[in-house]
Amino acid sequence: MSETTPDQLERIAQCAADAAPRWAGSEPRERASALVGAADALIGARSELVATAMLETGLTEARLVGELTRTAVQLRLFADVVLQGSYLDVRIDEADSEFVLGVRPDLRRYRIPVGPVLNFAASNFPFAFSVAGGDTAAALAAGCPVIVKAHSGHPRLSAATARLVTGALQAAGAPTGTLQLITGRAVGVQMLGDRRVRAASFTGSVRAGRLLADIAAARPAPIPFYGELGSVNPVFVTAAALAERAEQIADGFVMSVSGSAGQLCTKPGFLFLPAGHGLRDGLAARAATGEHRLLYPGIAAGYRDRRDTILATPGVVPIALGSLRFDEQGQGWATPTLASVSARDLLAQRDRLLQEAFGPLSIVVEFEPGQDLVALADQLFQGNLTGTVHAAAGEDSAPLGALIHWLAQHSGRVLFGGWPTGVAVTPAMQHGGPWPATTNDSGTSVGSAAITRFLRPVSYQNAPQGLLPLPLRDDNPWGVPQHRAGSGQSRHWGSQASVSAG
Amino acid sequence: MSETTPDQLERIAQCAADAAPRWAGSEPRERASALVGAADALIGARSELVATAMLETGLTEARLVGELTRTAVQLRLFADVVLQGSYLDVRIDEADSEFVLGVRPDLRRYRIPVGPVLNFAASNFPFAFSVAGGDTAAALAAGCPVIVKAHSGHPRLSAATARLVTGALQAAGAPTGTLQLITGRAVGVQMLGDRRVRAASFTGSVRAGRLLADIAAARPAPIPFYGELGSVNPVFVTAAALAERAEQIADGFVMSVSGSAGQLCTKPGFLFLPAGHGLRDGLAARAATGEHRLLYPGIAAGYRDRRDTILATPGVVPIALGSLRFDEQGQGWATPTLASVSARDLLAQRDRLLQEAFGPLSIVVEFEPGQDLVALADQLFQGNLTGTVHAAAGEDSAPLGALIHWLAQHSGRVLFGGWPTGVAVTPAMQHGGPWPATTNDSGTSVGSAAITRFLRPVSYQNAPQGLLPLPLRDDNPWGVPQHRAGSGQSRHWGSQASVSAG
Repeated sequence: MSETTPDQLERIAQCAADAAPRWAGSEPRERASALVGAADALIGARSELVATAMLETGLTEARLVGELTRTAVQLRLFADVVLQGSYLDVRIDEADSEFVLGVRPDLRRYRIPVGPVLNFAASNFPFAFSVAGGDTAAALAAGCPVIVKAHSGHPRLSAATARLVTGALQAAGAPTGTLQLITGRAVGVQMLGDRRVRAASFTGSVRAGRLLADIAAARPAPIPFYGELGSVNPVFVTAAALAERAEQIADGFVMSVSGSAGQLCTKPGFLFLPAGHGLRDGLAARAATGEHRLLYPGIAAGYRDRRDTILATPGVVPIALGSLRFDEQGQGWATPTLASVSARDLLAQRDRLLQEAFGPLSIVVEFEPGQDLVALADQLFQGNLTGTVHAAAGEDSAPLGALIHWLAQHSGRVLFGGWPTGVAVTPAMQHGGPWPATTNDSGTSVGSAAITRFLRPVSYQNAPQGLLPLPLRDDNPWGVPQHRAGSGQSRHWGSQASVSAG
Repeated sequence: MSETTPDQLERIAQCAADAAPRWAGSEPRERASALVGAADALIGARSELVATAMLETGLTEARLVGELTRTAVQLRLFADVVLQGSYLDVRIDEADSEFVLGVRPDLRRYRIPVGPVLNFAASNFPFAFSVAGGDTAAALAAGCPVIVKAHSGHPRLSAATARLVTGALQAAGAPTGTLQLITGRAVGVQMLGDRRVRAASFTGSVRAGRLLADIAAARPAPIPFYGELGSVNPVFVTAAALAERAEQIADGFVMSVSGSAGQLCTKPGFLFLPAGHGLRDGLAARAATGEHRLLYPGIAAGYRDRRDTILATPGVVPIALGSLRFDEQGQGWATPTLASVSARDLLAQRDRLLQEAFGPLSIVVEFEPGQDLVALADQLFQGNLTGTVHAAAGEDSAPLGALIHWLAQHSGRVLFGGWPTGVAVTPAMQHGGPWPATTNDSGTSVGSAAITRFLRPVSYQNAPQGLLPLPLRDDNPWGVPQHRAGSGQSRHWGSQASVSAG
């Protein structure tokens, strides 16, 4: 796939801008059926797409079939979000002659699409965070045309996916330019600076994400940039949990670290175990799995460097050394590496050890009985996508409560038991978190709430019914949820608090 | 009021960080009654506060009494928002063994406060956008401690307000550090870079706002910056509206331009009238009002420069020259200045004329019959807080529809008749808009939706009931709205769209 030329870039940006009002103006049924059409097109081409993805990414067939299914399910979920309409957050304040600050006009507020969205595809989810992935589905559902910057790790798959989805969208009546593909790193940067692009999403490294976030913020008219960057996803195991189910924890940990060769943003990078946990041999045995190809040579080279650094750090003891070799094509092949370090040495070597190791490597951190885990975590970690606690059934204590509270303050999702990899696509999912997990922790990039990143509110004041957008009209032809504030309410604001405070 | 010292700044930042978990953990009734207590304290000191504000700002007693009432009402509104609880956006996905992508865990999501918020107070609303103003009320309601950078235009009022509100908050049990004041421009910049500050809000000029937004974006860990900057609030009058109610339009326009000496972010800066409107003399007569003091010497100097530039621009014809003089204290005193220009000359002189003139000045733009107002607006304006259309009763046409659509795309609020000044504090208000109206158009700085700027979502996965935050528990002790997604639903996602697309 050749790089997008400057001429093409200009045409693509204008095409997205031209599509924006038409796609924004599509009725819920049109938009939803276009999303379902895209989902069906992906499923219809499953064997071809998965075969291409296997060649380009080295991921397994089972993983890719599951990911493709997830990608189609995401599109179908967003079709339902569009039809249901609560994402519009319609609020209607009736005109109020008794309003406490003078006559209140009739005010009606809802959310409109922001305009063309630029989505930087990820390497490690060639379907679910790529051309037709979650960010694209959310932006399309919001009513925004999408320009996807293809990831260089899977160019043929990107082109094939774009062809299929574009065809399906057009067949469903979506305007030309609703979904377009660009390629090339410099091209992506240039498009991010284009005045017609109104928001951007990204999944990738802290370095690239920070660079792009800074460009978005420095534009003459800045735009929101939703980047999902780096996360090490600490997991804390209590002594009681270890006593209760050590083998199960060892199983889950190694599965979570080695699946997809650890190339997941939610891979547990640090497992905190009580010193003397006795799991060393069991973990080593479980880590003796077959080789898995890494996504592309650049990822493999980065993994080699991080792994070398970690293994050469004073205080780090290998549990399972694993392997890493490069084939004639420069592709890396790895088996899981597990190492251990004391909490004290981790603190001393934090500059070498804390950065995310993207690949099948994780570090077991051994802590002492009674050690203050909140104080430890506070010295180690900034924001993460996830934080996990393994406690025993019914376990409850002040330190455990403090740790859970700390994790909620520093993560997007807090897990109790289980493992952070495998992110459910549902209304209550939060996939995001404080910096550097994301550049903007008000949004999520998985689940139905992801749509709000690509919307902004607008109010209509004293508009005649005939000039109102349909979701704001009293006859509500789309049947969207409308939250009404009736007249006369303002005189009672705060009175409930006054009484109850008495 | 002396400038905050580096020692004080460090203490204040730490005090806010220490208060954060306690204030975030306050129960709805505690937090609501603290907000009502603050409102009552302001009302109780009304005459003292208004007298100080009159001296420091030159605004009229009537205006300041109204603004103080509004400020108290805002606090009471947010008390109700806290008690009602829908701002938490609680979503509960029940565990689902039939989930289409494999077993779904129990997932529960709500919004938590982001932590200490830095609020840069505005000069032109010494109560409503200052120490205890809308941004402060919204952040406190969200559960965030607030540090207010006082505006240098009303230092004594800022100190008095902070004393009163801090006392009321503490009397209601809020932790020390829930509201604190800092002074000094460099001090504000330094606090914006402090790692303990997690979000910031600002109301002021494009220049200062851009500077601060860039600092917030460039931090090692960037934070959201909600700046409300510049807006010229165009008003378009159709020929039919003019025929129907020219006198009423002239009345409203001059009132909206001259109120508070035009020192309002929603002042209509441009009134588009059909050429030959015949309102010149009527507007001049209405503009002959008494002198009004401008807020402080810096504002007056800026107004003088903008007014001089506008009046010296080729094609600009004065309708009412108005006056501007400086007294011995350097305070500026002004009467309204109205000028007119043809649409063609405005386009030619856009670099001189389009920038906001902060003060009692507005420009009447004369357009030709049949002129494409959307094409004109598109060449003139970026984002605005408001856009207004005056049409005749029942008027409807394709050009009118296109203009309304354009305004919605480029504004936070679209008005039909009426005038943009006077912003209702209600659930459906949107006070924000695309750049340069704000730095971030996903939020509003007026109305109950303003609270969401200071919250971020977090999900709990498979948490035991006893370890969940109260709003996420099945027994729901606070009685907050909980949106539940039951099991088995995912198999039907998209099927409604598929059927209806047939």
